[in-house]
Amino acid sequence: MSVDLLVQKIKEKGNPSVAGLDPQVSYVPQYIRDKAYKEYGKTLKGACEAIWEYNKGLIDALYDIVPAVKPQSAFYEMYGLYGEELLHRTITYAKEKGLYIILDVKRNDIGSTAEAYSRAYLGKTDIDGELVSACDVDSVTVNPYLGTDGMAPFIADCKKYDKAIFTLVKTSNPSSGELQDLDNEGRHIFERVAQSVCKWNKDTIGKSGYGAVGAVVGATYPEQAAVLRKLMPKSYFLVPGYGAQGGGADGVRPCFNDDGLGAIVNSSRGIICAYKKGDWKEEQFAEAARAEALRMKDDLNSVLN
Amino acid sequence: MSVDLLVQKIKEKGNPSVAGLDPQVSYVPQYIRDKAYKEYGKTLKGACEAIWEYNKGLIDALYDIVPAVKPQSAFYEMYGLYGEELLHRTITYAKEKGLYIILDVKRNDIGSTAEAYSRAYLGKTDIDGELVSACDVDSVTVNPYLGTDGMAPFIADCKKYDKAIFTLVKTSNPSSGELQDLDNEGRHIFERVAQSVCKWNKDTIGKSGYGAVGAVVGATYPEQAAVLRKLMPKSYFLVPGYGAQGGGADGVRPCFNDDGLGAIVNSSRGIICAYKKGDWKEEQFAEAARAEALRMKDDLNSVLN
Repeated sequence: MSVDLLVQKIKEKGNPSVAGLDPQVSYVPQYIRDKAYKEYGKTLKGACEAIWEYNKGLIDALYDIVPAVKPQSAFYEMYGLYGEELLHRTITYAKEKGLYIILDVKRNDIGSTAEAYSRAYLGKTDIDGELVSACDVDSVTVNPYLGTDGMAPFIADCKKYDKAIFTLVKTSNPSSGELQDLDNEGRHIFERVAQSVCKWNKDTIGKSGYGAVGAVVGATYPEQAAVLRKLMPKSYFLVPGYGAQGGGADGVRPCFNDDGLGAIVNSSRGIICAYKKGDWKEEQFAEAARAEALRMKDDLNSVLN
Repeated sequence: MSVDLLVQKIKEKGNPSVAGLDPQVSYVPQYIRDKAYKEYGKTLKGACEAIWEYNKGLIDALYDIVPAVKPQSAFYEMYGLYGEELLHRTITYAKEKGLYIILDVKRNDIGSTAEAYSRAYLGKTDIDGELVSACDVDSVTVNPYLGTDGMAPFIADCKKYDKAIFTLVKTSNPSSGELQDLDNEGRHIFERVAQSVCKWNKDTIGKSGYGAVGAVVGATYPEQAAVLRKLMPKSYFLVPGYGAQGGGADGVRPCFNDDGLGAIVNSSRGIICAYKKGDWKEEQFAEAARAEALRMKDDLNSVLN
């Protein structure tokens, strides 16, 4: 009922970062694509087999230095049923390697439907008394637009199955402010959401001092992050926007607490497409990802120590 | 680039309603479940085979009287990969029967990721120049929390591929007001979202007079619906909350324009579980669903004429 497992893995690796596995087929080195297309054609299956070899290479290169991976569901859903199968295969493989899985799905709905989503990823599906895991991960991202009804089933499953969620609070994209920055009686909407997160998190605090209800707080808005850190002291922050989206280590510092914990910073394209920058050969895509993950680790630790 | 196709089907059937296909296995008549469990066990596959027979029976009983079906993705995702396959099978079958498909996924994310979601369901996936459909439906539901960046890819695909989206504005659940009803300079947040929807919809208006960017407006809040109808005169409303959630025909009247168009009312459990009420036998589940769909059609038309 907390993010204790994530905190433990972050401490073990000395690395508060997560590698985002957002693999469009165009990111995959051409020699891997060509091999897959030769066997399966330029089809959804061909794309997925290429991405699988890429994902596997990335995980093999990263699992001993990063605590967690974050597959972004959209980049699997876009390859249809083959993509869904690829997502499950990727999750299974990453779990075998000891990685903490944050599945980025940004789901939510009314209570009874949110319950189905929660069972899909955190809880278990009841088939006439048989409780079955449909797709078991450590945590998911959720959207707060529907209020407490939509959050409650996820929080219940966090408590029951020792899972965590990250609630969208202040997202990293340029237009995030359109809704999230609107004023409500002297506070921004994202602050109101943060107050709700703090309330939802309250009775889920674990040994690490952090609870099961975390927050997504973009690296691209450091001033807002500082405000949010105070409003949600016991929520873990999942921080997108570092690297490709423009956020740097200084920008993510406000997401952390004074204990050097409290946040895990995501990099997706920055890590998985690292081979496209500098003098790397395509065949070195995994090596390049590892080098970038290590650079990012040092970069983050430089502002934390 | 509009909901013209939906309007056409609504007119043909004289029925502004959509049947929600939200099939938990516990909704499926026991004799169907027993048959599936005998062959496949109480497994994800067994559950999905049972639901498939149920869905097929429901679609066969409904396709000539309702214009559209709305599969709720959560109730398929909760059965894992088998559930995803079931969802695709259900969509394919419903399309063959001439039904308009509203896939209820409530997706959204930052721009580049929203693009992947949009390609997954409305657009096409680019595999080194081959454009492939991953899961082709007529429309999806989307969440507005991330602002214009997250909406733009969906709107672009609506224009390119003649699709539609329904944006969460005021949801039907009891806690919807926690965020959506917050005040912003004299307007509720749901009104601010409605203003954005109106703006996004502006250059997508089709022959029917309605555009591609619709809104989800719950039947359970008729007073807010009346306000929203004025703010988004050319957006089609997808209206959940009729039936099982407590909304009646009078409650949904404000969602319609004076032309009797402008809204499509969803009923999920009310229709698909109709056999559980009254004197129906389990074997009559499809007949009961049809009777309830016809009753609902008459109920809606009684307040429209």
